[in-house]
Amino acid sequence: MLYLIGLGLSDHEDISLKGMKVLKNLDFVYAEFFTSKLFGTSIELIEEVIGRDVVLLNRMEVEEESIFLNKAKKYNVALITGGDPLIATTHTQFLVEAKKQGIKTEVIHGSSILSAAEGISGLQPYKFGKITSIPFPDNNFFPHSPYLTIENNLKNNAHTLVLLDIQVDKDRFMTINQGLEYLLKVRDELLNEGKENFLVTEETLAIGVARVGSKDLKIKAGKISDLINSDFGSPLHCIAIPSELQVVEAEYLIAIAGADESIKLLKTKNF
Amino acid sequence: MLYLIGLGLSDHEDISLKGMKVLKNLDFVYAEFFTSKLFGTSIELIEEVIGRDVVLLNRMEVEEESIFLNKAKKYNVALITGGDPLIATTHTQFLVEAKKQGIKTEVIHGSSILSAAEGISGLQPYKFGKITSIPFPDNNFFPHSPYLTIENNLKNNAHTLVLLDIQVDKDRFMTINQGLEYLLKVRDELLNEGKENFLVTEETLAIGVARVGSKDLKIKAGKISDLINSDFGSPLHCIAIPSELQVVEAEYLIAIAGADESIKLLKTKNF
Repeated sequence: MLYLIGLGLSDHEDISLKGMKVLKNLDFVYAEFFTSKLFGTSIELIEEVIGRDVVLLNRMEVEEESIFLNKAKKYNVALITGGDPLIATTHTQFLVEAKKQGIKTEVIHGSSILSAAEGISGLQPYKFGKITSIPFPDNNFFPHSPYLTIENNLKNNAHTLVLLDIQVDKDRFMTINQGLEYLLKVRDELLNEGKENFLVTEETLAIGVARVGSKDLKIKAGKISDLINSDFGSPLHCIAIPSELQVVEAEYLIAIAGADESIKLLKTKNF
Repeated sequence: MLYLIGLGLSDHEDISLKGMKVLKNLDFVYAEFFTSKLFGTSIELIEEVIGRDVVLLNRMEVEEESIFLNKAKKYNVALITGGDPLIATTHTQFLVEAKKQGIKTEVIHGSSILSAAEGISGLQPYKFGKITSIPFPDNNFFPHSPYLTIENNLKNNAHTLVLLDIQVDKDRFMTINQGLEYLLKVRDELLNEGKENFLVTEETLAIGVARVGSKDLKIKAGKISDLINSDFGSPLHCIAIPSELQVVEAEYLIAIAGADESIKLLKTKNF
C-alpha cells in the first residue's frame, strides 16, 4: 500500500495527527523535497517528530526509478512531501501508476500554499483566477506567460496568485523582488514588440507574502515600484496581484498589509 | 491573543501538531461550524483529542457579538473551524478587527477543500480558473452566476471547482446530483431567454468528488447525464468541470475516476 502524505506548509509540526498516526505503522517512509521545501525544519527534525527513519529521494529516484512504488508492491510505504501531496507536483501520476500495478493508495492532505496564501493575502478565495508561476530565467528561457496570465485574470476581474520558482538542488528561491522585476521586464519586452495598454506596471497594486504558515509571516501591499525595493527576508515568497477590490479586501490590505488608505478610493479597480 | 486555527478537511485527526500544541495552552477555545462541517467527527471527539472544552458558537455569536474577540483582549483564545481558517469564510475580517483593537493574532492553517479537491480531481491545480458555489435555490433566488462562471472559465480554457451549498443549521448539504441539476436548470432558463451555444450541457464531462480527506473518498468522472443519476453517498460533495484535458489528466480520470477511454480521443476539449 502507498500513502501520499502532505507535511503542510512550513515545518515539522504542520503535519496532521492522521499523517503522524499512519507514519508510525509503516514499513518504509520516503521523502521528496525537490518540488517543495519546508524552511522551518530539517529531515532530522521530521524524523524525530514522526519517530521514524526517512529515506530522502532525489528527482530521478522519484520520477524515473519510482523506488517507493516498487516497495509498495510488498510493503506499506509512504511518500511524504511539503504542503499538500497533490499540489504543484506530478504526484497524481503515482496514483495512476499504483492503480495500474494493483497497489492500494491513500492520500493524506496537508495545508497548501494555494489555499493558505490566498487566504492570508486578504483577498477573497473565490475571486482568484488561474494561478501562475514565475521561473528563474535561463538561456533563451524567459516566458511571458506569467505576465499574460495576470493580465488575462485582470481582464476577467480575477485576482492572481503568483508562485515563485524554487530550485532546491541549487539552493535558489525566487524573492518577491525578483518576481516583480521579472514582470516588469516582460512588460519592457512586450513594449519593444509593439504591445500597448499594459495592465501590470510600476503603478500596479501587488501584495508580497513571505513565509506563510510560520510565525515570521510578512505581508506587505503596495505599488510594485514600492514593493520591488522592500526586504521580505528569507524564503519562501509569493505574490498576489489583486483585481478590483471589495471594501473588506481593501480594509484588510490597509490594516494588515500596510497599504495606503488611498487604495480605498480606487473603488478599487487595479487597472 | 487570538488564534485562528484550521481543523483540516474531514475529522478530528486532520488538525496539525502545531494547532494541537497551541490549543493545549490557551485560556478559551471557541468553535464555529456554520461555515463548514467536519463529517467524520463531533464536538465531543474534538474535545477529547485536544483535551479541552470547546465552546460552540452560532453565527450571531461569531459575526455580530464577536464573543471570542472580546475575550481575546484579556485572554489567549482560539477560534477553531473546519478546513483552513481563512477559506470560504469571513474570518479575514476578524484579523482586521483584532488589529484595530490591538489584539495580537496568529493563523494556523489547515488542509482545505480548495487545494485538496483540486488535487484529488486529477486536474492540474494551475489550470483552474475562478471557483464557484452553487446555493440552495429559494423564493426568487436562483442565480445564474455558477453556470456563467463555469462557461467563462471554459472560454479561458480553465477548469472550474464547484463548491456546493451547506446549510448546517438546516442539516442540508447539496449533493453532486442536485448541483448538476441546478446547472442544467440554469441552461434551460438561459435557453428560454434566447441564449444560444451552451458550453455546459448533459454531454459535458464533469467530475464528482465526495468526502475528500476521508477513507471513504469517491471520485467519478463522466458526462453530466451519467453522473446526475449516480449515488455519491453521504456529504460533503463537490464538482469539478474540466476544460481541455492534458494527457496525464485524462489518464487519471480513466484510471482513478472511471471515465470512459473515449475522453482521450476528445484531445480533449470539453466544448
